[in-house]
Amino acid sequence: MSRNIYLKTVPVARALQTMKREIDRDALLKTERIPAEECAGRVTAAPVYARYSSPTFHSAAMDGYAVVAESTFAAREGSPVRLERGARCIAVNTGNPLPEGTDAVIMIEHVLKEDEDTILIERPVFPMQHVRRIGEDIVATELLLPQNHTLNAYDVGALLSAGIWEVEVWERVHIHLIPTGDEVLDFTHRPAPVPGQVIESNSQVFKALAENLGCQVTRTPPVRDLRDRLARAVMEGVESSAHIVVVGAGSSAGSKDFTRSVIEELGAVLVHGITVMPGKPSIMGMVRGKIVVGAPGYPVSAVVCFEELIAPLAAWLQRTSRSERRIVDVEFSRKVPSRLGTEELVRLAIGRVGDKYVGTPLGRGAGMITTLTRAQGMARIPVDSEGVEQGTVVPAELFVPESELSRTLVAVGSHDNTMDLLGNELMGRSDPIRLSSTHVGSMGGLSALKSGSALVAGAHLFDPEEGDYNFPYLKRYLPDRKVTVVNLAIRHQGLIVPRGNPLGIKGVQDLVREDVRFINRQRGAGTRILLDDHLRRAGIDPGAIAGYEKEEFTHMAVAVNVLTGAASCGLGIYAAARALDLDFVPLARERYDLIFPDALQDEKIEILLDLIREEGFKQKILDLGGYETTLTGLVMEPGVGLGE
Amino acid sequence: MSRNIYLKTVPVARALQTMKREIDRDALLKTERIPAEECAGRVTAAPVYARYSSPTFHSAAMDGYAVVAESTFAAREGSPVRLERGARCIAVNTGNPLPEGTDAVIMIEHVLKEDEDTILIERPVFPMQHVRRIGEDIVATELLLPQNHTLNAYDVGALLSAGIWEVEVWERVHIHLIPTGDEVLDFTHRPAPVPGQVIESNSQVFKALAENLGCQVTRTPPVRDLRDRLARAVMEGVESSAHIVVVGAGSSAGSKDFTRSVIEELGAVLVHGITVMPGKPSIMGMVRGKIVVGAPGYPVSAVVCFEELIAPLAAWLQRTSRSERRIVDVEFSRKVPSRLGTEELVRLAIGRVGDKYVGTPLGRGAGMITTLTRAQGMARIPVDSEGVEQGTVVPAELFVPESELSRTLVAVGSHDNTMDLLGNELMGRSDPIRLSSTHVGSMGGLSALKSGSALVAGAHLFDPEEGDYNFPYLKRYLPDRKVTVVNLAIRHQGLIVPRGNPLGIKGVQDLVREDVRFINRQRGAGTRILLDDHLRRAGIDPGAIAGYEKEEFTHMAVAVNVLTGAASCGLGIYAAARALDLDFVPLARERYDLIFPDALQDEKIEILLDLIREEGFKQKILDLGGYETTLTGLVMEPGVGLGE
Repeated sequence: MSRNIYLKTVPVARALQTMKREIDRDALLKTERIPAEECAGRVTAAPVYARYSSPTFHSAAMDGYAVVAESTFAAREGSPVRLERGARCIAVNTGNPLPEGTDAVIMIEHVLKEDEDTILIERPVFPMQHVRRIGEDIVATELLLPQNHTLNAYDVGALLSAGIWEVEVWERVHIHLIPTGDEVLDFTHRPAPVPGQVIESNSQVFKALAENLGCQVTRTPPVRDLRDRLARAVMEGVESSAHIVVVGAGSSAGSKDFTRSVIEELGAVLVHGITVMPGKPSIMGMVRGKIVVGAPGYPVSAVVCFEELIAPLAAWLQRTSRSERRIVDVEFSRKVPSRLGTEELVRLAIGRVGDKYVGTPLGRGAGMITTLTRAQGMARIPVDSEGVEQGTVVPAELFVPESELSRTLVAVGSHDNTMDLLGNELMGRSDPIRLSSTHVGSMGGLSALKSGSALVAGAHLFDPEEGDYNFPYLKRYLPDRKVTVVNLAIRHQGLIVPRGNPLGIKGVQDLVREDVRFINRQRGAGTRILLDDHLRRAGIDPGAIAGYEKEEFTHMAVAVNVLTGAASCGLGIYAAARALDLDFVPLARERYDLIFPDALQDEKIEILLDLIREEGFKQKILDLGGYETTLTGLVMEPGVGLGE
Repeated sequence: MSRNIYLKTVPVARALQTMKREIDRDALLKTERIPAEECAGRVTAAPVYARYSSPTFHSAAMDGYAVVAESTFAAREGSPVRLERGARCIAVNTGNPLPEGTDAVIMIEHVLKEDEDTILIERPVFPMQHVRRIGEDIVATELLLPQNHTLNAYDVGALLSAGIWEVEVWERVHIHLIPTGDEVLDFTHRPAPVPGQVIESNSQVFKALAENLGCQVTRTPPVRDLRDRLARAVMEGVESSAHIVVVGAGSSAGSKDFTRSVIEELGAVLVHGITVMPGKPSIMGMVRGKIVVGAPGYPVSAVVCFEELIAPLAAWLQRTSRSERRIVDVEFSRKVPSRLGTEELVRLAIGRVGDKYVGTPLGRGAGMITTLTRAQGMARIPVDSEGVEQGTVVPAELFVPESELSRTLVAVGSHDNTMDLLGNELMGRSDPIRLSSTHVGSMGGLSALKSGSALVAGAHLFDPEEGDYNFPYLKRYLPDRKVTVVNLAIRHQGLIVPRGNPLGIKGVQDLVREDVRFINRQRGAGTRILLDDHLRRAGIDPGAIAGYEKEEFTHMAVAVNVLTGAASCGLGIYAAARALDLDFVPLARERYDLIFPDALQDEKIEILLDLIREEGFKQKILDLGGYETTLTGLVMEPGVGLGE
């Protein structure tokens, strides 16, 4: 088993510098002539000089009458002048050539009266007033646009006005993508993956990112992990019209990671490893003057490789500036450690909470594409930092327009399918609201309220002693905080078991059976507290339950464990069992509440409350199954319990 | 002659509100199913739930060995543990399914030694360490994306990973463009306009702007100014698949402005006139539930109509947020008055000068597309303001990435063709610099240096008394300012006359002839000063020269006047005459200098100086004709004159 050793990992800036030094971009990227009306977004490869002037003649700048200015000089308010219509007083529309012999235009709004033969005016005009002069806009032969200029929509207008029908521009950068991997399924076949297989999707993320840059993209079907096949595919890419060839996955140190040795064989590896996480195992090299990149396989690493390395190189080849992401200051809602010597890119769910932006760090796993899709932005923890403390304000690059942050309702707490429903319905309002919902369990939600980093927390914390929901915990953990508690739904929790319940599980007493493997929820989750209460009441030692230490973060994840046989049962809500067509052994009903800090007034909360009080919304909750809506939308008080 | 009267002009926000109230967008825009890999930029029309989990199995998160965590617990630094390779210690690559019976992965980097049969480790791993769990990224059946969500490149990855092959999205907004006007030439025929004609280009500006928004665009050839033809064209647009029909030009009060009456006949006019300049004569109405817009004909008015009215409506139909322009604070380099009751959009050439951004207002004419192409941004003078004073700091919306402002070298002063050459060459440097050159004459350049609103001024101010260039003026107008003066070129000025010099003009004495119509340069221009000096020396009264009061702002504009017969001669540089194939009666040689304020250190100036001192650049100046480069690039001192 042979493995690669990284070259020295280098900062991104150095990696790019190395590539720009080695690549001869004038040789690599050609120019082409394209129609002027299709040139927006492209880059001039040569200066453009105007062919025609604009206007090509003196013309009326207003609707009105072309006159000889001198004939109007006597006009005053109260002392009008009457002009005879004829060769020296002619009705004109905007754009008409100024009739020979006239030298000014009276705006129609300033004509007091007009009849068949005369017009009456009360104001004089000066020579050339309301006249567009020859070449006022564009003068023939003058420089219209310099070389290496990124053409915009306005330029199209200037080009056509100046009689320029074709423009010499730089070619669009052509990126050729080669996905690899024995385990990888071609998405074009619409496959159903079995364990050990994944659907190849990075190439299509790259394609969308590249098209945003104005690049064109080709892609091969996934190439198997065979060194010769990969070498052949790379060579075909290099011999095509592509400027950049990207090998997807296989850039790391695994025994099937051939990218580096293939580039070494065909050309030269210039960079292997960058000091950025995710994205570290990126490779860049040169084969026959073309750029060859080995992109990591994990989706987030792959995106980082594209955005930090490939995109800047493509922009450099094309002579375009990349559009800049807006940067805003964001308060971290929790601590994120980082390794010294590595820049860490932290994806953040960002929303406005009170008078600040709060960023909730999403998972750090490079394999989680949803940490990008659920993020509104990203912060960089620098190479020389050991991390960011909770409450620290850090600049973050936004993926979305800044205005969207004010339309983002930051929810932190327990996961429930009714929250998904809520999130979708809020996006259907005429003024849509994005529910940015981070699932850290009910206790995590209370913590977020305490630190002022969420506008709402979803919680279903049962206190066995008081027999009440959420309020006992609020009293304990947020004694000084005034909050409003509104019920979202009463929901059913139970043991999720495989279809037909093959092990005949009937209640918590079955969890200690030798043939039963349990899957648990994480500490702090309301469901976990509920379970522990049931275990305590039944006198069961959690240590005796196989799998008690295995934690999942959502009901659905628990259900998937049961579906795939990774566990024989787990505690969760009915909706999760039903969604995966599993069976459900009811254990308890509980209250799932939304908790709002009173100090943070926000109209989004009003919109949310209006929504959940609608009968149509309650019906959609009931349609999910496993819920009751008798308390939905009602403000809760201590001691209400399930309202019975 | 019948003319329209505007409806009450309304603010843009009110105009949009009116349209959104009247248009039923759910009825107007349909949904469609498209392949997931092509959905970036589109908007979901329904929630998307995951079909598959990702990963669908527990898998190795690192290259290394899958083991039973318990078997590693004893490993410590200096006290390694040896594991026998087999079913419970198996080499895995990232992404491999976790082999049955194992529950953790040892990173290859943490394996001390590996041989055929065993591996040696010095660190323990905990259960599930370096394992990607089932559904860690995506859990089947969970909400992946809500409705009305603008899909991005990352979402494509999430969709494919979740087994979603097609997505229900809103249709792209289809905008149908109908250019109008008897005077308008179809650019597709590559026409040569004669006086009275203009090349239709607004439709292509609209097309480029619309495509930036993700809209699709169709266009008819220009329609003549006949009411019935226009009505038919609008009706065909409304009956097509278009959602928005735009009539180009004809929205104002001219006698051939039929747009309003046509919309009134076919449907209803809802807005006629907005309180924005340019852009005021915009019309919006509804025909059979579709949006019909009458856009003004002037290119800048048309752009404003598109960006302020059509684009927001298209975004609203499509449920997208429009990308926001960055806003920076900009100091106005000169006063701009504005009419109360009208919001005025001022196009600005913006660049960094010292520690601030300076914005030079470009021409206000709605007919000048180059006020957009030469602008880096735009400021809004509010409805209730009478204008902006020089030196006032005002927020400006940028058309370019902010980083480009630091690469923009703000030049103000006299126009010369060598400045165009310079501007083009600077864009060819490896770190390109944009020369933002505003032509306000030599004296205007000195004013800009005085107010600190330019990094460089181009001037050729001759002082007849001292027989020297620029320094006498600098002493008078900028006595306290330290500047460096560097010569760009010695140039030839003369009388530009038609080819063959039909009037036999030999010098300034001919300008007073009855058959000679002169075209002058604006006050403050060095050329004007030169002329006045020659007239004084020849004892000629300027008042005796026909056309002395007619001013142009560039040499080329003067030459165009001569070319078209609007004038019989004008004073200008040889290059302008040669470019238009005109004849040239030499009058004088003069120094064209670049003046840099010493207080504003800027590396762009170093780059500029390096460039103009290159022999290749000097040769390009000589190739223009009418120049000498004996002083080019040299630092000038008082009294040098032409260096002879």
